[in-house]
Amino acid sequence: MKKPLTKTSPIGIFDSGIGGLTVAKAVMDALPNEDIIYFGDSARVPYGIKSQETVRNYSNQIARFLIQKGVKMIIIACNTASAAANDSVQHAAGKVPVLNMIDAGTYGAIRSGKKAIGVIGTLATIGSGAYEKSLKQADSSLIVKSKACPLLVPLAEEGWIDNEVALKTLDIYLNTFKSNGVEALILGCTHYPLFKTVIQDYFNGKKLDIIDSAEAVAASAKSKLELKQLLNNSDQPGVLNCYVSDRPQRFYELAERFLGRKPENVFVESLKD
Amino acid sequence: MKKPLTKTSPIGIFDSGIGGLTVAKAVMDALPNEDIIYFGDSARVPYGIKSQETVRNYSNQIARFLIQKGVKMIIIACNTASAAANDSVQHAAGKVPVLNMIDAGTYGAIRSGKKAIGVIGTLATIGSGAYEKSLKQADSSLIVKSKACPLLVPLAEEGWIDNEVALKTLDIYLNTFKSNGVEALILGCTHYPLFKTVIQDYFNGKKLDIIDSAEAVAASAKSKLELKQLLNNSDQPGVLNCYVSDRPQRFYELAERFLGRKPENVFVESLKD
Repeated sequence: MKKPLTKTSPIGIFDSGIGGLTVAKAVMDALPNEDIIYFGDSARVPYGIKSQETVRNYSNQIARFLIQKGVKMIIIACNTASAAANDSVQHAAGKVPVLNMIDAGTYGAIRSGKKAIGVIGTLATIGSGAYEKSLKQADSSLIVKSKACPLLVPLAEEGWIDNEVALKTLDIYLNTFKSNGVEALILGCTHYPLFKTVIQDYFNGKKLDIIDSAEAVAASAKSKLELKQLLNNSDQPGVLNCYVSDRPQRFYELAERFLGRKPENVFVESLKD
Repeated sequence: MKKPLTKTSPIGIFDSGIGGLTVAKAVMDALPNEDIIYFGDSARVPYGIKSQETVRNYSNQIARFLIQKGVKMIIIACNTASAAANDSVQHAAGKVPVLNMIDAGTYGAIRSGKKAIGVIGTLATIGSGAYEKSLKQADSSLIVKSKACPLLVPLAEEGWIDNEVALKTLDIYLNTFKSNGVEALILGCTHYPLFKTVIQDYFNGKKLDIIDSAEAVAASAKSKLELKQLLNNSDQPGVLNCYVSDRPQRFYELAERFLGRKPENVFVESLKD
């Protein structure tokens, strides 16, 4: 049974694993009074190597779970699921608005006013061409240059953000953007906000806007809730409840790095295939 | 219907993905006339983050598939599945002998005659304590020192084996073994043979035996087939047939790096959950 949408309903956010917590953090920063339900599909991560049909199937299961929890909005905080499952999640969500990373990154790039846009992401995201398609659809005159950076996710999970290995890896991946005319760079993976400061430092001296999809989707969420008159007006800080499909221990260990603080409430919830 | 085991029956090898191809290569080097059926569960990789029950379930499905293909031996070329599923795979395999990476690495360490053994592997393998348990069971006087090296798998898949990033990463993970008294080091992950030469160079000047689990399991396979009088006496080179559960393209791209040559025959075979 669907619960009525109210101002005090929580916002639902999901990802294939832990990366989407950077989105949860950006939403909490932008909307500190909103309650959040986060679902990390840690038993079935990563989505990037799975077929579109499987990703849609998993995403729909999670959407139904979040709807049952009474969320007033769903944020697909996973680039692979954003590309594969936005329409089917919107169908599952009914009248509950659905936001996704690729639209948010695209809006952020358009708002920057730049004409040459770089995109970095996982092999799956870059290989899918989803950002390029979305950017060109928004403005066919844009020049888009993409680069897969597969080592950044494991580096972030190892906590190697600014050591010698991380800096050299970033140099190998990013040096092309120092000379290829790109004026704005989309961080097209939910793990990448951890490297935001390091990437800004790397491009120091060059005019390059960094577009953080997590911040962009948080801004979209705020606008959308305002428009629908569903912003929580409470003066109490919001509560974050996390659900994972397997192994909460690893989630606890990593969550602080992505969230900026320890998650208080972590529950295990197995979804049926 | 089970096929009778004959000398010309193939050897079955499986892994959660691509890493087990280093084992296939070692088996082909040791037994060049044997036919091999390789199964890489690319749709469900990685196993390390999944529950033991799930890993057993997946491994049993693959074992039944290999038995239907008429294999005369199954090699579990995946450390996680070796730790979680050896007994259940042996049960599914009936009279067909089953070898696994952890037993093979343990035998290799015992044969080295060294008393202080280092083990490197993924977070899941090292966290499980499977090598330590197996080594202590074989010889309780052994001293075992383990170190998880989570970045080596993504480095191997990126093809960064001996660049600056790889060398610095290996130094961070391995420098402890330069001074902690370890005399032999088990490469406890099927991806790690790609780094064997670089690791040998790193320890140049220090007496440290490198125990390559892939070579160790190939040696065990040869002994076992000799014992059972099932060695293929043909003078024809063996044929390798590969089955993957998803996305053969990525398998093609990576396989050469692990196998030393392109795989000729790659088929998609979906197994039911």
